[in-house]
Amino acid sequence: MDLEQLVECVGDANVVRRELLSERATSYWNAEPTDAAILIKPTDTEMLSQVLRLCNEQGQSVVVQGGLTGVVAGAEPESTDVIISLEKMNQVESIDDLDNVAIVQAGATLQQVQEQIAEQGLLFPLDLGARGSCTIGGNISTNAGGINVLRYGMMRELVLGLEVVLADGRILSNLYPMLKNNTGYDLKQLFIGSEGTLGVVTKAALRLFPQPTSRQTAMVGVTSFDEVITLLKRLKSGLAGTLSAFEVMWNNYYVAVTGEEGHAPPMDRDYAFYIIAEAEGFDAEQDEERFQTILSDALDAEEIETAIIAQSDKDRASIWQVREDFEPALPAYLYDISLPVGNMETFADRLREDLAGTFPQGESLVFGHIADGNLHIFIRPDEGHEGHEICDKAVYENVAKLGGSVSAEHGIGTEKKAWLNLNRSADELALMVDMKGLLDPNGILNRRSVF
Amino acid sequence: MDLEQLVECVGDANVVRRELLSERATSYWNAEPTDAAILIKPTDTEMLSQVLRLCNEQGQSVVVQGGLTGVVAGAEPESTDVIISLEKMNQVESIDDLDNVAIVQAGATLQQVQEQIAEQGLLFPLDLGARGSCTIGGNISTNAGGINVLRYGMMRELVLGLEVVLADGRILSNLYPMLKNNTGYDLKQLFIGSEGTLGVVTKAALRLFPQPTSRQTAMVGVTSFDEVITLLKRLKSGLAGTLSAFEVMWNNYYVAVTGEEGHAPPMDRDYAFYIIAEAEGFDAEQDEERFQTILSDALDAEEIETAIIAQSDKDRASIWQVREDFEPALPAYLYDISLPVGNMETFADRLREDLAGTFPQGESLVFGHIADGNLHIFIRPDEGHEGHEICDKAVYENVAKLGGSVSAEHGIGTEKKAWLNLNRSADELALMVDMKGLLDPNGILNRRSVF
Repeated sequence: MDLEQLVECVGDANVVRRELLSERATSYWNAEPTDAAILIKPTDTEMLSQVLRLCNEQGQSVVVQGGLTGVVAGAEPESTDVIISLEKMNQVESIDDLDNVAIVQAGATLQQVQEQIAEQGLLFPLDLGARGSCTIGGNISTNAGGINVLRYGMMRELVLGLEVVLADGRILSNLYPMLKNNTGYDLKQLFIGSEGTLGVVTKAALRLFPQPTSRQTAMVGVTSFDEVITLLKRLKSGLAGTLSAFEVMWNNYYVAVTGEEGHAPPMDRDYAFYIIAEAEGFDAEQDEERFQTILSDALDAEEIETAIIAQSDKDRASIWQVREDFEPALPAYLYDISLPVGNMETFADRLREDLAGTFPQGESLVFGHIADGNLHIFIRPDEGHEGHEICDKAVYENVAKLGGSVSAEHGIGTEKKAWLNLNRSADELALMVDMKGLLDPNGILNRRSVF
Repeated sequence: MDLEQLVECVGDANVVRRELLSERATSYWNAEPTDAAILIKPTDTEMLSQVLRLCNEQGQSVVVQGGLTGVVAGAEPESTDVIISLEKMNQVESIDDLDNVAIVQAGATLQQVQEQIAEQGLLFPLDLGARGSCTIGGNISTNAGGINVLRYGMMRELVLGLEVVLADGRILSNLYPMLKNNTGYDLKQLFIGSEGTLGVVTKAALRLFPQPTSRQTAMVGVTSFDEVITLLKRLKSGLAGTLSAFEVMWNNYYVAVTGEEGHAPPMDRDYAFYIIAEAEGFDAEQDEERFQTILSDALDAEEIETAIIAQSDKDRASIWQVREDFEPALPAYLYDISLPVGNMETFADRLREDLAGTFPQGESLVFGHIADGNLHIFIRPDEGHEGHEICDKAVYENVAKLGGSVSAEHGIGTEKKAWLNLNRSADELALMVDMKGLLDPNGILNRRSVF
C-alpha cells in the first residue's frame, strides 16, 4: 500500500520508517534488526481505528506489537508488514478502590500497572518474569499466566471489560467494572488469548484485589515427585485461599542455574526437586506462624527433606532469582506445555530417554507452575549440534501421548502452528478459521500467527 | 418436520410425546403445562448429535432444557418446537483429586455434583438457591453466578473444558484438566453464557478446590450503605482469601420475608441494611477467632450496629433462609442487574421514587451480591395493578443511567431482549448476530433467546 497515506493519517511524529526501524531488535529473543515497511505508534483508539481501516481496505498485512517478550515469535514482522506498536498508549487511566477496577491502556507495561495500583493500596495479581517489558495488551492477547495463577487465575480471569479495534476499524468498547455482566455473548473472550488475530486490544478494565500486607516465601527440597504432590495438597488446604505460588524445579534445572557460573544456591544442590512456595495474607504474625507450622509439620512427617523460609526481602530475592533468572541455563530451546499433574514425572523421564539417543551429552531441564499443570523445559542439545526439530518432536509427541497441551501460557504464535493439531480436532480448527474469517475477512491481522 | 424420524433415531423410551408433555410444567416460574411438538431425552452425545443433525437439515426449531429454573424464560418452548432435555445425561463421570477436576454430564443437578464431589473431600464452589433443580449444563449456558462468586468466580471461571454439540451435529470435545491451555482460540468460551444459542453443552471438565473444614457465618445489621462498604473492605482484607459470601439485604426486603407470615427474623427488623458474611477455611479454631475479632473490631469502631455469629448448622440455616427462601415476598416481578457499587444506593432510591408516582402502595425490595456488583430487585406493584412494563422501564433505564448492566447473572433469554441495546452497541449486537449465523446458520437453537 501507499505508506504515505498512513503517515498522513497519524502524523510524522507517530511513525518509525523502515530505515530507522533497524535500530530496534526484532524481539527480546531475536536480536536481528527489525525489518518491516513502517511502524505506526497510534496515540489513541480513534487514530488506530483509522489506520486499521486504511490497511483493511488495501489488504495490508499488520503485525501488532506490545513488549516483544513473547516466546513464540508471534509479533515478528516480515519486511512488507506494517507494525502497529501500542507504546504510546501506555497510561493507567483510572483506579477505583470501591469497585476494585482499573482502566488501563494496552501499551502500559505490567510492572508499571502493578506499581501504580500498589500505590493505591490495591493489587493487580498477574505476575511473570517479563513484567518490566511485557504489556497489558500483550498479556491479554496471549492470556498470560505466570506465578500467581493458582490463586488469582490467568489474565482471562482478571479482565472485566475490553476496548478493541476490529480489522475494519470498528471500535468495540465495553469497560463495565462489574464482576457479573451476562448481557448477550461475552465478546471480550474472543480477543483474550487469540494473539491479536481477531482485533487489537486498546484498553482493559482490570480486576483488582486488596493488597496483601504479609508475605511468606519458602524454598523446600524433596526427594520424589510424590513428595511434591503431598506438599502441594498440604499447603493448599493448610493455607486456605492464601497460597499464591507453588513453583517446582527439577534437580537438573536447579543445578544448571546455580553453582560456579550461576546463582548462589539457597540450599544444597542434590535434592531431586526444589519447590518455591509463597503465601500472601493480611496478618503478618498469624500468617507467619501458620506457614511455619505447616512446613515443620511436613518435616516432622518426613514428607519433605528441608525448608528455608525467607527472613528478608533479600532472602526472598535470592530464592526467586533461581526460578526467574534462567540466564545461566541458556542458550537452550525453551518449551511451555501443560500436563495432568500425575503424568509430569513420566513426561520428564520419557523426554530425557528419547533425547538421550540423539544427544548423549544433552540435557532437558524441567521446571514450572505445577499447581496449574504447567511445565517449562529448556533443552540443551549436545554442543555444536543443531536439533530444534528433533527436540520439538520429542517434547510435543510426548505431551500429546500423556494428555497434555502443546502450549500452556505462551500461545501458538508462528512457532507452534505445526503442533496445534495435536490438541485441537479438525472441527475445532475449522471453527477457528471461520471465526478468523468473520472478524478479519481480509486476513490482515497477525496473519502468520495461530494457524 | 416428521417427528417419527426423531423417534426412530432415539427410540420410544427416549421421547415424551405432545400428549404427555402437558404433565410437565413449563418451568419453575410458569405452571402452565408444557406445549411443544415433542421432547427428546438423548442418552449420550452421539444420539444428541444425530437428533440435531436431523433438526438442522429440516430447519426444525429446538429448545434446550436443563432444570427449568432460569428466570428469563429462555427454555420455554412454543408449540412447534422440539425440546431437547439433558435429563438422562446426568452422571458425574469422574473425580480426580490430583488435578482437581471432575468430568460431569450436563444434565446432572448442581446439588448432586456438589455432593458427589464433597464425598471425595473436594469442593465444587458454584452455589445458588436453585441448586436442587438447576443443572450443570444450564449453569454453563447462563454463566451462573450465585453466592460464592466473590471467592471462586462465576461458572465461566470454573469450566476447564467442554464437550458441545453444534447445531449441525458436529461434536467439539475438549476436556483437558489443566488450568493453563492456550492452544488457539478458546472455543469453549463461545458456549459459556450464550444461553444454548450456539451449541448444546453435553459435558464439562469442572475445576475443583480443597473442601474447607471450617465455616463461619454472621448476620450483621448496619444503618447506612457506607457502613456496608466499610465492612466489605474490612472483611476482604481481614479474611484474606477466605471470605466466600457477602450478601446484602435492604431493610424492605428483610421486613418482607420475615415477620408474621415469613421467617423468624434472626435480628431486629429496623436496621437499614442486613449483611450475611461467610468465610470458609481449614483451621476451625484460628478461623473462628479471626472472624470474631474482625467483627468485634468493627463493633468497637462503631462501623456496624450489631452482629450475630452462627453457633450451629441450625443457626446458619435460619440466617441463610432469609436470603434464599424469598417465597414470603412473592408474588413480585424479579430483576437481576449489576451496577458499580458506588451507584447502588442511588439506584435503589431513584427506583423507589420513580415507582412511587405510579404505585403509591407498591414496593421495590432490594438485595444481592454486593461484592460482585450484583443486585436483585422484587417489585410488587399495588394490589390488583398490572405493571410489568412500567417496572421494567423504571429498572432498566435507571440501571443504564447509572452505568450498570441489565443482566448480572440471569442472562437475556426471551424476557430481556428489548433491553440488551442499553448495554451493547449496534456493532456489538451485529457481531453477536454474525456469530450466531456462523455457528447456527439455520437458526434452530433457542432461536427466540438473546436477540
